[in-house]
Amino acid sequence: MRILLNPLDGMNLLSQNEVAKLQKSSNSPLYTLFRSCALAVLNVGHESDDLYNEFDDFDINLLSRERGLKIELINPPEAALVDGEIITGTQEHLQSVIRDILFNSSKYETTDFTNSVEVTNAIFDILRHANVILPTDLPNLVVCWGGHSIKENEYRYTKEIGYQLGLRGLNICTGCGPGAMKGPMKGAALGHAKQRIKNGRYLGLTEPSIIAAEAPNPIVNELVILPDIEKRLEAFVRVAHAIIIFPGGAGTAEELLYLLGIMLNPNNKSQVLPIVLTGPEESIAYFEEIAEFVESTLGKEARDLLKIMPNDPVRVAQFIKAKMVEVRDFRRSVGDAYQYNWTLSIDADFQHSFDPSHENMAALNLNLDQPKTLLAASLRKAFSGIVAGNIKEQGVLAVKQKGPFILTGDPSLMQKMDKLLMAFVEQGRMKMPGSKYEPCYQINIVS
Amino acid sequence: MRILLNPLDGMNLLSQNEVAKLQKSSNSPLYTLFRSCALAVLNVGHESDDLYNEFDDFDINLLSRERGLKIELINPPEAALVDGEIITGTQEHLQSVIRDILFNSSKYETTDFTNSVEVTNAIFDILRHANVILPTDLPNLVVCWGGHSIKENEYRYTKEIGYQLGLRGLNICTGCGPGAMKGPMKGAALGHAKQRIKNGRYLGLTEPSIIAAEAPNPIVNELVILPDIEKRLEAFVRVAHAIIIFPGGAGTAEELLYLLGIMLNPNNKSQVLPIVLTGPEESIAYFEEIAEFVESTLGKEARDLLKIMPNDPVRVAQFIKAKMVEVRDFRRSVGDAYQYNWTLSIDADFQHSFDPSHENMAALNLNLDQPKTLLAASLRKAFSGIVAGNIKEQGVLAVKQKGPFILTGDPSLMQKMDKLLMAFVEQGRMKMPGSKYEPCYQINIVS
Amino acid sequence: MRILLNPLDGMNLLSQNEVAKLQKSSNSPLYTLFRSCALAVLNVGHESDDLYNEFDDFDINLLSRERGLKIELINPPEAALVDGEIITGTQEHLQSVIRDILFNSSKYETTDFTNSVEVTNAIFDILRHANVILPTDLPNLVVCWGGHSIKENEYRYTKEIGYQLGLRGLNICTGCGPGAMKGPMKGAALGHAKQRIKNGRYLGLTEPSIIAAEAPNPIVNELVILPDIEKRLEAFVRVAHAIIIFPGGAGTAEELLYLLGIMLNPNNKSQVLPIVLTGPEESIAYFEEIAEFVESTLGKEARDLLKIMPNDPVRVAQFIKAKMVEVRDFRRSVGDAYQYNWTLSIDADFQHSFDPSHENMAALNLNLDQPKTLLAASLRKAFSGIVAGNIKEQGVLAVKQKGPFILTGDPSLMQKMDKLLMAFVEQGRMKMPGSKYEPCYQINIVS
Amino acid sequence: MRILLNPLDGMNLLSQNEVAKLQKSSNSPLYTLFRSCALAVLNVGHESDDLYNEFDDFDINLLSRERGLKIELINPPEAALVDGEIITGTQEHLQSVIRDILFNSSKYETTDFTNSVEVTNAIFDILRHANVILPTDLPNLVVCWGGHSIKENEYRYTKEIGYQLGLRGLNICTGCGPGAMKGPMKGAALGHAKQRIKNGRYLGLTEPSIIAAEAPNPIVNELVILPDIEKRLEAFVRVAHAIIIFPGGAGTAEELLYLLGIMLNPNNKSQVLPIVLTGPEESIAYFEEIAEFVESTLGKEARDLLKIMPNDPVRVAQFIKAKMVEVRDFRRSVGDAYQYNWTLSIDADFQHSFDPSHENMAALNLNLDQPKTLLAASLRKAFSGIVAGNIKEQGVLAVKQKGPFILTGDPSLMQKMDKLLMAFVEQGRMKMPGSKYEPCYQINIVS
Repeated sequence: MRILLNPLDGMNLLSQNEVAKLQKSSNSPLYTLFRSCALAVLNVGHESDDLYNEFDDFDINLLSRERGLKIELINPPEAALVDGEIITGTQEHLQSVIRDILFNSSKYETTDFTNSVEVTNAIFDILRHANVILPTDLPNLVVCWGGHSIKENEYRYTKEIGYQLGLRGLNICTGCGPGAMKGPMKGAALGHAKQRIKNGRYLGLTEPSIIAAEAPNPIVNELVILPDIEKRLEAFVRVAHAIIIFPGGAGTAEELLYLLGIMLNPNNKSQVLPIVLTGPEESIAYFEEIAEFVESTLGKEARDLLKIMPNDPVRVAQFIKAKMVEVRDFRRSVGDAYQYNWTLSIDADFQHSFDPSHENMAALNLNLDQPKTLLAASLRKAFSGIVAGNIKEQGVLAVKQKGPFILTGDPSLMQKMDKLLMAFVEQGRMKMPGSKYEPCYQINIVS
Repeated sequence: MRILLNPLDGMNLLSQNEVAKLQKSSNSPLYTLFRSCALAVLNVGHESDDLYNEFDDFDINLLSRERGLKIELINPPEAALVDGEIITGTQEHLQSVIRDILFNSSKYETTDFTNSVEVTNAIFDILRHANVILPTDLPNLVVCWGGHSIKENEYRYTKEIGYQLGLRGLNICTGCGPGAMKGPMKGAALGHAKQRIKNGRYLGLTEPSIIAAEAPNPIVNELVILPDIEKRLEAFVRVAHAIIIFPGGAGTAEELLYLLGIMLNPNNKSQVLPIVLTGPEESIAYFEEIAEFVESTLGKEARDLLKIMPNDPVRVAQFIKAKMVEVRDFRRSVGDAYQYNWTLSIDADFQHSFDPSHENMAALNLNLDQPKTLLAASLRKAFSGIVAGNIKEQGVLAVKQKGPFILTGDPSLMQKMDKLLMAFVEQGRMKMPGSKYEPCYQINIVS
Repeated sequence: MRILLNPLDGMNLLSQNEVAKLQKSSNSPLYTLFRSCALAVLNVGHESDDLYNEFDDFDINLLSRERGLKIELINPPEAALVDGEIITGTQEHLQSVIRDILFNSSKYETTDFTNSVEVTNAIFDILRHANVILPTDLPNLVVCWGGHSIKENEYRYTKEIGYQLGLRGLNICTGCGPGAMKGPMKGAALGHAKQRIKNGRYLGLTEPSIIAAEAPNPIVNELVILPDIEKRLEAFVRVAHAIIIFPGGAGTAEELLYLLGIMLNPNNKSQVLPIVLTGPEESIAYFEEIAEFVESTLGKEARDLLKIMPNDPVRVAQFIKAKMVEVRDFRRSVGDAYQYNWTLSIDADFQHSFDPSHENMAALNLNLDQPKTLLAASLRKAFSGIVAGNIKEQGVLAVKQKGPFILTGDPSLMQKMDKLLMAFVEQGRMKMPGSKYEPCYQINIVS
Repeated sequence: MRILLNPLDGMNLLSQNEVAKLQKSSNSPLYTLFRSCALAVLNVGHESDDLYNEFDDFDINLLSRERGLKIELINPPEAALVDGEIITGTQEHLQSVIRDILFNSSKYETTDFTNSVEVTNAIFDILRHANVILPTDLPNLVVCWGGHSIKENEYRYTKEIGYQLGLRGLNICTGCGPGAMKGPMKGAALGHAKQRIKNGRYLGLTEPSIIAAEAPNPIVNELVILPDIEKRLEAFVRVAHAIIIFPGGAGTAEELLYLLGIMLNPNNKSQVLPIVLTGPEESIAYFEEIAEFVESTLGKEARDLLKIMPNDPVRVAQFIKAKMVEVRDFRRSVGDAYQYNWTLSIDADFQHSFDPSHENMAALNLNLDQPKTLLAASLRKAFSGIVAGNIKEQGVLAVKQKGPFILTGDPSLMQKMDKLLMAFVEQGRMKMPGSKYEPCYQINIVS
């Protein structure tokens, strides 16, 4: 089966040079990555353990026509089609893949990504090129983090939060996978519909190594694939006007530690960025565990940045809504943009790409006698490695070959990490439901 | 608690005369009806057995200001509000009540409703005034009928049908209550979202005596309250480009008999109006029962008008979509409008308001030796009376006072009716779940 | 040549009843009026002394199709067509004629036009039905009055005023003929274009007896044909947020006297409605003449209502723009609409249709010993009759048959009128350029 | 006087890097050019011989704010303001200057402009960045060339042509100065207004050295400043769907010769690009002179590319309109874009920037024994130099210092050029009206 697509919107106005470059890219080493991301968005909503092999006769090509670009799909997943025609929303996601994986790959070839300012500008450029930097009068974008594998009552709770936010005209940004990344968008869509808001935003930020495992859910109407995990995290915190953290596993812990590491930077002391941890009654224990871990490792200052609001979607939404005015006033007072938080300081240590090899994981400085922001950065990396070992193709392979990652450090800290991770395992937050979790890490507690 | 609303859209451009008339109407005998309909749409989504008493301190007033109209709500149900402000979609429904109950009440004072042409023109006028007669290039409005009290798997099935219709760009019109009236809209909304269709239509047609029992679900984005049940039925068949019938009870049977009675009219022989009966696998028996009843009472010609397509949402949607071209071609060939089927002949017998008193019910001609269209009209009335006895305020009261309605007629016909109604009872289709059904009718089988 | 038009916009959503009524109307005694108005708007921009005979093979029919209305044109003027297709703007004007002459004719059959409230409500209804009552945040509609036959430098001046108003985002309403009715619109269109205002309004208000003589210029993008001259005048003053009066002849004098008569009504004392008389340097004498006539007949209070601002378009526009805030504040303070001045009191004497027969003209009470508002009303009628005698078909005919109208009254008043009219004649303001003026009136100065 | 502007549209979404670069550019050697272009567009509509000195206290600065860019104007010309606020259309033009002079200056630093493909892609990129590459279903962009200094009847004629094109839904692209560059836009604006076309396009293509002398007229609603005259010419022919040539002088001759040189390229044999020469009756002699020159120098094949249609705006517009279908069919047949003619071959000789120094002018190969396309290229350069010597700052200065340009070549060719240029002089086409022409060239006729 062969389908030929005419690109939507701007993509039909490429120059011949650009078409040629895209075509070349699609034949390059990038191709494997490109094909698997394309497959992930085309097969949205249909679980598959092994996309790559299940659709081994799938192929995607960009055809250069003088008149512009054509996208050729060979044997695309049924999920992408209705009566032989691609679903518009799915084509939008596919074009995001072309834009962010292929088009951008050559664009930033000469960018110096060791330069912090360049990184921040490039992220802005990527987001703007994806048309997600929109002029606004009132801040309204709520970033929601949380696990892709959560319990049914937790999922319902994330929907209810999204609904209450949507009723109040707020928009949602998530990592765009299932679970806590889908619930708030689904709820907000209903809230927006009731308020007759037609331009509600469901912004998904993802990155190449995770998109296959957490394909963008169909509600996402703006999709951006950032180059790597650190740039994705920076994009989250710079576009966020508020952040809600739902129950989750290692990935959520990584996000939280990244956020705290940045907010503890003295330059960011006056920043207004509400952080709310919320979930149903049954999740209180989870949050207390997290809060205790944060306080005992990063200190009371870090703990105080977190507002825990259990089981009250209406109050959470009212709180966030009220904060939007403060966010606006702060941005205006420092002359910052509403759509992108330029003034937030992010240390290079949080920007550089961390490669979770066994060596790098083993070498992490996990001692308490270092500045809190550095400790947060190291802890963030530790959890990032665990996420990789759990679900990312390369990480999973490395663990299979060399055994679990070894984490070594201050005994009391190691014990705390161990306890937290064990709790995640027990609560089933490390893997998709139905599978047994095989730890990809080993905590060395040397007394 | 007191809330003052500025009317949305056109309603802020009333003349002083019109404001005065509205205000007078709202103090008239109409007021009780108006208040209870308003209450129903304001309390949407929240079940209440006894709206009237539960919200006895609720009041609604129209205030005349030189600058226009203000709507005053005293103690409205919480369900209508977010942080003290009315939900936009709910206000739209409320304004539909003002428009259709109050504004229209004086508009048609002089209309001769015994004149068939006048009736058809008035219904058009009501629909156009409600802004639901929209220019279209391709017919796309699918009327869905079915029970408000259906089984969970049936409900899921109606959603799936709606989803498949929505994916194909089709719009939904229902009676706008729960169950089979909500599922197709919910599904279509998701399908439209995936196809990035922003102007999807979820048209609800209701009438005053039923709105309280079947409040418009929140997805409805166009709501019209026709004056009575016969005008509502005529509105359905004149705006429909296709009709899908899901499992239901007496109400659904009424709708089906009305439809068949009209389609059997020789003038309508060439009309193109696909009628599909569909449901999950488990509902096949139900449809066979219906089909058998139809065939044995109205004949094979009637039976052949019904296309039963069990358990295949994709095929149903593809079938309907394909038929839209035929509908367009037919309308064009006879010079009829796409948005309103002027050429469909509807006999006066189907237009006149039927009052289901005990006398009228007893007097129904339920014999087989009459033209099929007349028989269909009588059967339609019989089922209409049963619906009234089941859920409409006045009907329920009458049955409580005078005992069940007595239906008399041809024995073989009476047996068939009895059998069909017993099946509805057994399948729990006569009442909302959880309550035991007490028949409001008694079939006299005189041998 | 035969052209068949599909109606634009709403007119394709008529009910069958409405189509039937329209068709019947177009075959009725109204037909002659309808045909000549249609001809006038179709021949726009092309002067013709004798439209009726020049296009004697022209015909217009409304064809009833089940699917709606079709407009059939037989031998329409070339001016209406481009390559055999009607110009969209011209079709809009044509549909205004159908709507206001035919559709409305039956709509107000039962309206009691002796009832002042009914008149005001009917005018609102006509304007709203024509979609010219638009919600606004800030008043911005400037009514411009002035002669259709003005000097070249005066015309350029009206364009310059329009340009300066347009640059400031103000909209224009005129009587929609040539001269001072066209200049301000043309200028405003340029000003709007420079400010990238795409929804600039060029509202033309006219009436059947004048439309042939003063066909709507092509810039008019909203056209309403009020039933008679008095309703047109009332429409002007109720939609106006400010009024500019340019040099003109008897018609302009009529408008000014109407306006003064109303503003002198004690009920209107607090009304905020700026009235500016302006023209190029050379027109100062004209305005002084007018002002003197007003002061000596209606008194200083009347004179003080007029602000004469010679030869300074920028200052005039700045003055008007600044006044808009006052107008808004006043409307808000009394709870009146921004789009229609409901609170302005208009005495029945100004609402009743005046038939300028020789008897009625002779019977006018033109004495100074009466209340100023009554005097203004009488003077208004006198000038109205002169306009009729000058350019309206019926008036011209009557004068031809019975000689000039005789006006009798207080000698000093009569002398003033004579002087004013003589000035109009001398300045060539009574007829289109190139023709010699033959007075249609005779002033009786009985000493 | 100091005015601070918030950028419109996209320009408020710049990254901090971009703002910094813009600011740096505005302090660079580019500044003088930038300031004079800014001044030209701000003083639009007001002739000034010496903008630079008349507004010597004018200054423009770009202020970097974290929140984005601010544009600071010190003592801007009155013409740009209304009540102290800049006219929106003028601000759009100003932003085009910032975008094209400053923003683009660094963008193409590394582009290899000796590479023909790169040039064509860069021009596309500049136009797309200016948002003038718009998706279209039917080709509709008519490029109009002609003199900035034309006679009154010729100007009226260009307006009439524009009007007839606008009535037929066609859009206009010109060099955006006065005369034949303004008339067609003005006429089209009226035609569009009558047809209620709200998105009519009036595209102006200019270049830095000419913008001061031919400031964009206020009707231009899309303005692009190409880097130099050759890129401007390439932009014209690649966006054109048809080209109309009005009477003009040396500049128009340059454009015509450029166009013929390209169309004579054998690769372009099958191209569909109608070229119409038109003007009022009195201009026939002019066109015959041109045609004769073309035939005797470039041959009959070149002559046959020109369609001369004197004095018939309706027929011209009908002809162009009909051709649009052929243009579309051709583009579709070769798979080319509708918005940009990628398949048109343009030799490097027509792309390279020609510097009209005395040496370069003297060195031009003006002999007949060379391929026609090369001869066309040389003749194009000769006329280009004459334009520079006539009105461009640098050229005028060079001629003042070193005397007229010397042109040498084949005697018969030289005689023909001399004759043509003399005719331009006699007809007053070389300078703005009112000034006496002092030739900037000298033709050497060596026998």
